[in-house]
Amino acid sequence: MNRGRNLIIGQSGGPTAAINSSLAGVIEGALASDKIDTVYGMINGVNGLFERNVINLTEIFKNKAYELNRLMLTPAMYLGSCRHKISDDEFEKIIDTLKSYDVGYFIYIGGNDSMDTVNRLSQYTAEKHIDINIVGVPKTVDNDLMGIDHSPGFGSAAKYIATAVREVAYDTSIYAIKSVHIIEAMGRNAGWLTAASVLARDGVSNAPHLVYLPEVPFSVDNFVRDVKEKLKTLNSVIVVVSEGLKDEEGNYISAGENSCDKFGHVMLSGVGAYLKSVVEKQIGCKVRALEPSVLQRSAGHTASLTDIEEAFNLGLVAASAAINGQSGVFSTLKRISDAPYSVAYSTENVSVVANAEKKVPLEWINEQGNDVTNEMISYLKPLINGVPQVPYRNGLPDYIDVSHLDRRNQSYSEDSEEF
Amino acid sequence: MNRGRNLIIGQSGGPTAAINSSLAGVIEGALASDKIDTVYGMINGVNGLFERNVINLTEIFKNKAYELNRLMLTPAMYLGSCRHKISDDEFEKIIDTLKSYDVGYFIYIGGNDSMDTVNRLSQYTAEKHIDINIVGVPKTVDNDLMGIDHSPGFGSAAKYIATAVREVAYDTSIYAIKSVHIIEAMGRNAGWLTAASVLARDGVSNAPHLVYLPEVPFSVDNFVRDVKEKLKTLNSVIVVVSEGLKDEEGNYISAGENSCDKFGHVMLSGVGAYLKSVVEKQIGCKVRALEPSVLQRSAGHTASLTDIEEAFNLGLVAASAAINGQSGVFSTLKRISDAPYSVAYSTENVSVVANAEKKVPLEWINEQGNDVTNEMISYLKPLINGVPQVPYRNGLPDYIDVSHLDRRNQSYSEDSEEF
Repeated sequence: MNRGRNLIIGQSGGPTAAINSSLAGVIEGALASDKIDTVYGMINGVNGLFERNVINLTEIFKNKAYELNRLMLTPAMYLGSCRHKISDDEFEKIIDTLKSYDVGYFIYIGGNDSMDTVNRLSQYTAEKHIDINIVGVPKTVDNDLMGIDHSPGFGSAAKYIATAVREVAYDTSIYAIKSVHIIEAMGRNAGWLTAASVLARDGVSNAPHLVYLPEVPFSVDNFVRDVKEKLKTLNSVIVVVSEGLKDEEGNYISAGENSCDKFGHVMLSGVGAYLKSVVEKQIGCKVRALEPSVLQRSAGHTASLTDIEEAFNLGLVAASAAINGQSGVFSTLKRISDAPYSVAYSTENVSVVANAEKKVPLEWINEQGNDVTNEMISYLKPLINGVPQVPYRNGLPDYIDVSHLDRRNQSYSEDSEEF
Repeated sequence: MNRGRNLIIGQSGGPTAAINSSLAGVIEGALASDKIDTVYGMINGVNGLFERNVINLTEIFKNKAYELNRLMLTPAMYLGSCRHKISDDEFEKIIDTLKSYDVGYFIYIGGNDSMDTVNRLSQYTAEKHIDINIVGVPKTVDNDLMGIDHSPGFGSAAKYIATAVREVAYDTSIYAIKSVHIIEAMGRNAGWLTAASVLARDGVSNAPHLVYLPEVPFSVDNFVRDVKEKLKTLNSVIVVVSEGLKDEEGNYISAGENSCDKFGHVMLSGVGAYLKSVVEKQIGCKVRALEPSVLQRSAGHTASLTDIEEAFNLGLVAASAAINGQSGVFSTLKRISDAPYSVAYSTENVSVVANAEKKVPLEWINEQGNDVTNEMISYLKPLINGVPQVPYRNGLPDYIDVSHLDRRNQSYSEDSEEF
């Protein structure tokens, strides 16, 4: 039997509801190719590679269509993650390890940091004439990647936020009392997820009534004025704010480290909790702050089918690119049209996405800095479409078993700034 | 044409994902009866009645099967709510108003406060020989109603919390770092929703690893000891706490009013935020506090089909009871068996549910006070089953139009302690 070479895949950075769909796409593409012998997965990204913490994905998924479908619909990362930024002097060790597994194809799913790894590793293999193709697959809930119309993972998080805003609007519609709800969306530097909350508007409810993106300096005075103005005609005002709002001087809007509890513990709190206290003090009506936090990035039960399918296709495209000799590229998509919605898949040089950040264009934010334009809505609208058939068992989403992560993670603990 | 008399229905108290399904059941039962001429709805409960703020539900829903189905699956309250506790001297005004609408049947959907209204109003009509039948339909996410196996609305909130815990477990499984997540569940006096989080366990993940119910006095020292113990064998520890935890002296576990931000604003924060600061200080690992807040009670997009169907049936039973001459009763259900799950519907005297509160039995909580027993799990398990076919449009749940509430609510503002 004429054996091909092996393909290895890893995941890195923060979780989304669609990364495993990209993994499923890579696996399906690799299993279908006669150039690939075995598909390996590294556990916890390149950290797993260093420790030879590698699993055989061919064994797990070959001829297992149902399991591959479950993988597509399981949030977070089947292979685990890491935040490790590879230094140049680690390249040799990585290549040696890859060679020991007879790897000819290395695929990495991640955000702009991970694409930097792909970029530098592919430059190294090119310079050294090492016959391993290095290809990236993009992902992030923040939608801040360059070189792609929108990031896989974003559509599902956008759908979560819009659904939450709509349901809060229904929740609060029942009372004839003046109230304010402040919902804090993820996206420290880019306001895409905050903007996506406006999809909750449907001609029936106009919630959210105010949205504040981090691209525009935030003024507490203007916020109070805006909310008071809305309260003139509405009983219930729903506001969505980015977790990363900053004032004119570039300081984050939050209670800061000076807040304390009754035992003197420092109480850090975010912009939502802070603005809640502002409304209590300066307006005096009922107010709630809601912070969906990680629930918005891992909500597989309400994923966007469009997002899941696109993430899968980007995995397929990356596997095919690597197998057909490309290296130093990432799989991407361009939008052909909004309505009917259509995209075209391709690959591009990974240097365009590495370390760069795509913010919301200022012309898609209104003049008052408290809403977005129709161009933004046209851009966002197709991304949340479609309801995936998530499998259920005993009333809950029946995601794929990831207990291999528990077992392996218990053996060591990585130090990380973010989690 | 031999006209029957009219039926009026109202909703009261806090929202759930299943109250509108009970409303749909009452409407369907009433529309099918030749004893009923017109079905009316009072907006914002008895407050709407006082102001003759009443809508004609026959016009809206007669021969509109699709709309009635959308109503079943729409969270919160189509008719709006109020927190008004009727005083005895308001009975006459209520009866006069009901007579002016030729109402023979009065149905009220709500929790134990609302059932108190049903109880006292039905005693008044009985004493005065007024020919109006007064019937209640129970609801609450807290599951603390007496006289019923479990409360409509609870199953959907339970499913939300269990889904959230499972998704947080997936989210956090990807990192090889020590971390603690603290999720705060609703239920100030009863720990049913906190307990329901254990349904997230599935043989793959054991999250939640610790659960603390308000029925047991909470000790911060024991909590720290429990978490440290779990961290010995797990990287990621997931804890669910009731919002109403109290210490041995009966004081709520929270940061209290002494906390302050950098501008001297008082920062109230709940038990989750407080315990986060405790973990930071006394354990020192990564920690997040999550408070799903109202998202858990109005999440129609992930409702339990069992809950939605039972709520509908309880509405049907109440309409039928009123039409057939019962008064001073509420519709209820008894469990016949856990597996296969089966319930029987009936009516009971509303005095058993009015103003009473059903807490979690202490024998369903483990000795350490940080978990629940298998009896609790057998009780909970059937309640979250089934996935309703929620209609979607443009990627979001396509709930029924409730803009009539906006228009009417804008005209006045009620003062309320809770919202």
